[in-house]
Amino acid sequence: MSVFTAVDTPALERFLAGYAVGRRVAHEGIAAGVQNSNFFVDTALGRYVLTLFERVDRSELPFYLHLMAHLARHGLPVPAPIANRDNEYLGQLCGRPAVLVARLAGASQMRPGPAHWGRIGAMLAGLHLAGLSYGRRLANPRGPGWREAMAVRLLPLLGERDRAVLEAERAFQRTADFSRLPQGVIHADLFRDNVLWTGDGYVGGVIDFYFAGHDALLFDVAVTVNDWCAQDDGELDPGGVRCLLTAYHEVRPFSAAEADAWPAMLRAAALRFWLSRLADALLPRAGEMVLVKDPDEYRNILLRRSAGTRLPWLR
Amino acid sequence: MSVFTAVDTPALERFLAGYAVGRRVAHEGIAAGVQNSNFFVDTALGRYVLTLFERVDRSELPFYLHLMAHLARHGLPVPAPIANRDNEYLGQLCGRPAVLVARLAGASQMRPGPAHWGRIGAMLAGLHLAGLSYGRRLANPRGPGWREAMAVRLLPLLGERDRAVLEAERAFQRTADFSRLPQGVIHADLFRDNVLWTGDGYVGGVIDFYFAGHDALLFDVAVTVNDWCAQDDGELDPGGVRCLLTAYHEVRPFSAAEADAWPAMLRAAALRFWLSRLADALLPRAGEMVLVKDPDEYRNILLRRSAGTRLPWLR
Repeated sequence: MSVFTAVDTPALERFLAGYAVGRRVAHEGIAAGVQNSNFFVDTALGRYVLTLFERVDRSELPFYLHLMAHLARHGLPVPAPIANRDNEYLGQLCGRPAVLVARLAGASQMRPGPAHWGRIGAMLAGLHLAGLSYGRRLANPRGPGWREAMAVRLLPLLGERDRAVLEAERAFQRTADFSRLPQGVIHADLFRDNVLWTGDGYVGGVIDFYFAGHDALLFDVAVTVNDWCAQDDGELDPGGVRCLLTAYHEVRPFSAAEADAWPAMLRAAALRFWLSRLADALLPRAGEMVLVKDPDEYRNILLRRSAGTRLPWLR
Repeated sequence: MSVFTAVDTPALERFLAGYAVGRRVAHEGIAAGVQNSNFFVDTALGRYVLTLFERVDRSELPFYLHLMAHLARHGLPVPAPIANRDNEYLGQLCGRPAVLVARLAGASQMRPGPAHWGRIGAMLAGLHLAGLSYGRRLANPRGPGWREAMAVRLLPLLGERDRAVLEAERAFQRTADFSRLPQGVIHADLFRDNVLWTGDGYVGGVIDFYFAGHDALLFDVAVTVNDWCAQDDGELDPGGVRCLLTAYHEVRPFSAAEADAWPAMLRAAALRFWLSRLADALLPRAGEMVLVKDPDEYRNILLRRSAGTRLPWLR
């Protein structure tokens, strides 16, 4: 369960009085996510989601909220934050920074097919294009610097085999230079469970922007492909990769440098999630509830991307 | 049919390339409305509505488009304009000012009941509250000045009975002073056919903001009540009025001055639509296609509001 802060009806009613969305009709906690407390809130006017930020750095919230607003303004299906009567997105409820966002329709699709790959590729490219005109900056919190620092912290804690894999990947990644690839705002966590699909097959919502930041756009593509196009054995589905990348390329064409960097970028993206899962498992954080996902899944994906066989298409 | 300007596929594809919404999948004209050309546009990312402005004064478009964006930002179910890659709402297509907006779900409800009256009242009050923080100004184009000027133009064209009714109403309205009532941005045309309802009973969309402007908020309430709460004979349904006004009042409480002005305001709102329907019927405009609605319907509503019997509740 992921409601760390209970919100009672009188407190919510006082909070909603600062908005133009009408009176509270109902609210209930949402049992998903581990970073924040989330609630469905129905009012006389419509259906919204309320988020109380439990751990996110408050100084970074404007970057995320204005980014979601910016992308929604450009027609992307993201949860638009709702401005209060003072024209502010960020409010305060039960002692926490709080935001009300539009409630998006749809359900996750954990077994994507060609129609999903195509739409996700086009959507990610649209997100990258729209992000180019976004004015605020925040570096990708899981960028190359974080990956190197986290590797150094984790190495002493790993078994022999994992240590060898990680040392080899560090050495390989030091030979890669992504800094000259097209940069921009990336979602950085576009896994299947962060996308809602409507009944008529559209992307109804892309959620969970709290890992977004500036980085190489191709890193975002690699994170997405590693999840959406992985078969059960971790190997990429070549048809899925081609479908997703073709749809992306039609909206934002890849450069030759990006095509050259693609194999190394798939490995960097796999490394990022292997490291964060290892950290969740090996570096317990006091007072925090962490959903530990299996690190080995991403070690396997990293190894398969490193093998270089059946190199997925990008041109 | 209301597509005055044909938009072919290559032109639309070039237009969409300026946005982040992905490539055109399909588009078709919408046979509704008489002011602009409207199209449903489906792209790889979602479903939108494209409007080409045929007659609206271009200098007034920013007021309308930024108003819709402002209200959407505040959680109101209005068609949010989509920004292009230059961060602009207003584009150009086939020689016309053009805007892409979010496509809203739902269908009009021409036989409203208590649930509709309540939600419309709350929605209108929310719209008024959110509008208070909107920075741009445009006077209600159908305000007191327009009504007086239009009455003077029409009087010589009317038959004896209509002339007597109009003269009497002019004399009455000259005794009313609405300038001290709470002012703000009003929709000014919130008829039943401008509201879309979702399957689960919410207002999915309020459309057609091209009569919006600054005026007494109570004028908007009166326009809305005159349409939503009128029985077939034009008389108000007292239960409907109470339901709509109570829901409005819970979100934005009426002042005592508004309660006092209510009977006269219902007449002013009825007069506004009687006059515009008379103008459409009696003052043909060269080169314009006008859907002439029966003026007598609103003369009847005006007369019934003037009779003062069964005075609808407002406190």
